[in-house]
Amino acid sequence: MYKQYVSVQEALEIILAHADEPMIEVVKLEDCLGRVLAEDVVADSPIPSFHKSPLDGYAVRFIDVKDAKPDQPVTLEVIESVPAGHVPALEVIVGKATRIMTGAPLPQGADTIIKFEDTNVQKDQTQHYENSSQHVDIYHVPKSPGNYSHVGEDMEQGQLIVTKGRLIDAAVIAVLASFGYHEVHVYRKPNAIVFASGDELVSVDQQPSYGKLRNSNSPSITAQLIAWGVRAQMGGIVPDQKEQIASTLLAALDSHDFVVTTGGVSVGDYDVMKEVFQAIGAEILFWRVAMRPGTPMVVAKWKDKMIFGLSGNPSAAYISCELFVRAFVRKIQSLSDVWREPVRAMLTRSVGKVVGQDRFLRATASVSREGSLLVEPLATQKSGILSNLIDANCLIYVPASKQKIHSGDSVDVILLHPPTASNHELNRAKDIPLFGFAGFANSGKTTLVCKVIARLREMGYRVASVKHDGHSFQMDQEGKDTWKHRQAGSEAVTITSDSQLAFIDYRKYEREEQLKQALSHIRDVDIILIEGFKTLSIPKIYVVRNPDLLHHAYELPMVEAIATDFSLEQQKLPVYDINDVEGLSRYIVNRVLGES
Amino acid sequence: MYKQYVSVQEALEIILAHADEPMIEVVKLEDCLGRVLAEDVVADSPIPSFHKSPLDGYAVRFIDVKDAKPDQPVTLEVIESVPAGHVPALEVIVGKATRIMTGAPLPQGADTIIKFEDTNVQKDQTQHYENSSQHVDIYHVPKSPGNYSHVGEDMEQGQLIVTKGRLIDAAVIAVLASFGYHEVHVYRKPNAIVFASGDELVSVDQQPSYGKLRNSNSPSITAQLIAWGVRAQMGGIVPDQKEQIASTLLAALDSHDFVVTTGGVSVGDYDVMKEVFQAIGAEILFWRVAMRPGTPMVVAKWKDKMIFGLSGNPSAAYISCELFVRAFVRKIQSLSDVWREPVRAMLTRSVGKVVGQDRFLRATASVSREGSLLVEPLATQKSGILSNLIDANCLIYVPASKQKIHSGDSVDVILLHPPTASNHELNRAKDIPLFGFAGFANSGKTTLVCKVIARLREMGYRVASVKHDGHSFQMDQEGKDTWKHRQAGSEAVTITSDSQLAFIDYRKYEREEQLKQALSHIRDVDIILIEGFKTLSIPKIYVVRNPDLLHHAYELPMVEAIATDFSLEQQKLPVYDINDVEGLSRYIVNRVLGES
Repeated sequence: MYKQYVSVQEALEIILAHADEPMIEVVKLEDCLGRVLAEDVVADSPIPSFHKSPLDGYAVRFIDVKDAKPDQPVTLEVIESVPAGHVPALEVIVGKATRIMTGAPLPQGADTIIKFEDTNVQKDQTQHYENSSQHVDIYHVPKSPGNYSHVGEDMEQGQLIVTKGRLIDAAVIAVLASFGYHEVHVYRKPNAIVFASGDELVSVDQQPSYGKLRNSNSPSITAQLIAWGVRAQMGGIVPDQKEQIASTLLAALDSHDFVVTTGGVSVGDYDVMKEVFQAIGAEILFWRVAMRPGTPMVVAKWKDKMIFGLSGNPSAAYISCELFVRAFVRKIQSLSDVWREPVRAMLTRSVGKVVGQDRFLRATASVSREGSLLVEPLATQKSGILSNLIDANCLIYVPASKQKIHSGDSVDVILLHPPTASNHELNRAKDIPLFGFAGFANSGKTTLVCKVIARLREMGYRVASVKHDGHSFQMDQEGKDTWKHRQAGSEAVTITSDSQLAFIDYRKYEREEQLKQALSHIRDVDIILIEGFKTLSIPKIYVVRNPDLLHHAYELPMVEAIATDFSLEQQKLPVYDINDVEGLSRYIVNRVLGES
Repeated sequence: MYKQYVSVQEALEIILAHADEPMIEVVKLEDCLGRVLAEDVVADSPIPSFHKSPLDGYAVRFIDVKDAKPDQPVTLEVIESVPAGHVPALEVIVGKATRIMTGAPLPQGADTIIKFEDTNVQKDQTQHYENSSQHVDIYHVPKSPGNYSHVGEDMEQGQLIVTKGRLIDAAVIAVLASFGYHEVHVYRKPNAIVFASGDELVSVDQQPSYGKLRNSNSPSITAQLIAWGVRAQMGGIVPDQKEQIASTLLAALDSHDFVVTTGGVSVGDYDVMKEVFQAIGAEILFWRVAMRPGTPMVVAKWKDKMIFGLSGNPSAAYISCELFVRAFVRKIQSLSDVWREPVRAMLTRSVGKVVGQDRFLRATASVSREGSLLVEPLATQKSGILSNLIDANCLIYVPASKQKIHSGDSVDVILLHPPTASNHELNRAKDIPLFGFAGFANSGKTTLVCKVIARLREMGYRVASVKHDGHSFQMDQEGKDTWKHRQAGSEAVTITSDSQLAFIDYRKYEREEQLKQALSHIRDVDIILIEGFKTLSIPKIYVVRNPDLLHHAYELPMVEAIATDFSLEQQKLPVYDINDVEGLSRYIVNRVLGES
């Protein structure tokens, strides 16, 4: 009996265990781009293979010129001129110099190159030395000799330069060319064929009648495989009849390294793919994977050929192909990283609870201005939705054990493409929701903030707070160690104990930057309440107990509600009683956490 | 007269201003992978085009089943079974249900799908309805009706799905297929030819004699162009003779959209490329770019064809091609992002001072465990070094205005490939050098740390410090606002004023995590001194005034030197007098900043 409902990890292990050794073939250098190197490239000679001039200038003996200065130039006799590709004929001896071009070999005797800009030629005959002697003045000298490209500086003889299993790109080609690989051993490209099954499918050039749709899986899966180096072919649509699928598959398996199908692998009445695989004598390796999208999937082996039965849902098929078939394809081409190693990124939007299955969320990754990798899940994650694959540059991997992932969480991300640049300005706290309490002195805002903090805590939220102090607060106390560090000149002191951590930054920041800095230290909470900073653009409640100050509610930026202890009618903004902690807390939760 | 020594920005602008409109051609869907879309894809019909079942189950009327519970199932009569691709014949009316497969159209009258797992069929005849009536018990119902895939849920009719100028990948192919694009309008691939010049070059299949080397530029530049979608061809090596280059170029320009050459563009005696371009009647657009590597470069226009004369230095040619020729190639294919937008990353190693030129450093980008993008410049940046292109996955862009870039700085990075995962554990402070002072009570370590802080400040370094307090320090004072926030339940409070910022985290951390957290708050200093944490693995000085405690110097981890007030002989570790602040400061600077 085969395995059912395996984990992603198990599925991957089973598939990789059945990935065979690739064959090797020899291709011309000009045809090897995108292929996989099947031999180690070891430097059979050093590069450079001779001491070489890295610039246009004069090759000299350091000892002759070491005292040259702009006002005391040293004059040398120029004995020859050596272009790149030519061999110096003469040794540089006392008082002599050789004019030398970039890439030309260093003449014997010389140990230093003086660049043109630091010299002056005395005669106006720069290219003929046979019949006239010529001299050069040296005005400036490097600190020490040896400023040329040494033998083996780039690659030493015997050094392993590129390891087999590496994808051949332009840089590898440059190395191969340097060592004379006009022919290259590469792994043979696997070949594959892709079939779609489903009575609902019509081919791309047909108009679907009611209840039907065009087969988008075959072209797209085929393209994925081609992009990964497979000679992949579209096999078209097979009908939902077992016998026809069976004979089609058998013919295909005969002439391909592996076969991919889409559709017919779920639990429906017409999901016959697994039965067909068994009917042709293939061994089912597993059926169904504990992941979403892509639970329906069957992988089988027929003789030494693999059959991947993917879901008929376009996104599920795409993602399963990306995760599993790609790993297989890389393994059978001996590529080193069969699986894209996830990187960590900060989630910018919470994603609802799902239990019991690993999830792969289509998402966009970007890098904030502070260099943090951010990841935004796309709006819908239904497995039937195809269009958002266009926008995804990564997948968020949410393990089955995670109940819910919150904005601000660090999550695992599989990058399909390099992340883009983001305009995010604040540090990671930017993505923790924040809400402000603004008011003038004696408005009672500290009291209110504290009550709201307490209520939010009761409701189960993790709360952090930021307070702006109009005066200059004194945090560390005279005589304490932190105070001493500060007095000595430390710009920022952190003190920790087993129960508390405090960080004090003694540098001055502008008002707006103060808030950014303040937020940047906060992590791992659900909400940040901000007291003060009334002129900054954050959503806020205006706290007021003096009717004369009410008008500020309409003048300060982003005031969303008013909290007061006097009665107010006909306000454009919602009004809360300053003691209605429950109402205010619910308003904030609903407003910034989108929950109620 | 042409422009000389232009900035990178100017060079790019000039090149792009000469990038012509591309031609359009029609290719089959199966041939369009990697091509550039030349038409907008607008949904001519909604997808899905009918209300569709997203699962295998029963289509019902919500009103009939809404009260169903596990112990009070609702029984419905099954009137038909609809596979995907088939059209329901019957309307679902009161008390009826239609068995429905994933992808099948929703029958009229039904508004809810109940999945198989929440039902039980009463008879064992699941597929024949003609002659026997069949009933299904419904045990569980979704909260509300409408749990099917709605018309247009994926793509609405009239919606712009993919914009022209988009590179066609597997996801775009899926969309094209869905809308019946069996033929696709794409931009014509440009064609180009690549020549190498230089008397020092021999072709890849030849053995270079002394002073010569193999032509690696042509194969590698050609591969770069092919990877960007150009039909590029290797043109071989042209000799350094002007007439031969001229006739070769003229023939090549006749049959290609653009030409790339390497070599012969610097200031040497044989750097004739610019003259040749002029001799064939091409207009020089600029010569030399204020960047390193890659200063030597000449770009010219002959009729409507561009000629890119790149440096002969392999790395310079590669990077100039990556920056400029790639932008040109993308523009003439109408691709949207002609230039890879740099992202911000944290530098993990300082790079020496260079003045007056933009620099592009070969580097590796990775993502730390905290989700920060880190970038490590490769060891050597000489323009003659080819081998490290193998390892680079990005380029660091250092603008000419930057004197030196320091470890910990935020820098601009051009990602050539997705960054890898890094094992970096600490936050950004990890990459600010740190040094510890450990000792038992009364060792005088606070006094010593303060003196060293003061001395380092005098030496011009920006210093931060971390102190571990064995006891439980009290930072905020009772009755103050931060204290009130804390009492209310805030887990972390930040208070700011115009002259100070303080952050207090009231959560408990394990000892090792305490240090990580402490460091994570510190930025923008040159060194961090750590007092305490004696059992942690950080390089440290052991401070001791009691000879009986000396042995700990050899037991605590990573003690590098001893500071004491008693005389010590024959120690394995270097010993400093506890008052030798100058010596200790110099030791630390030399040790962790690599300066003296």
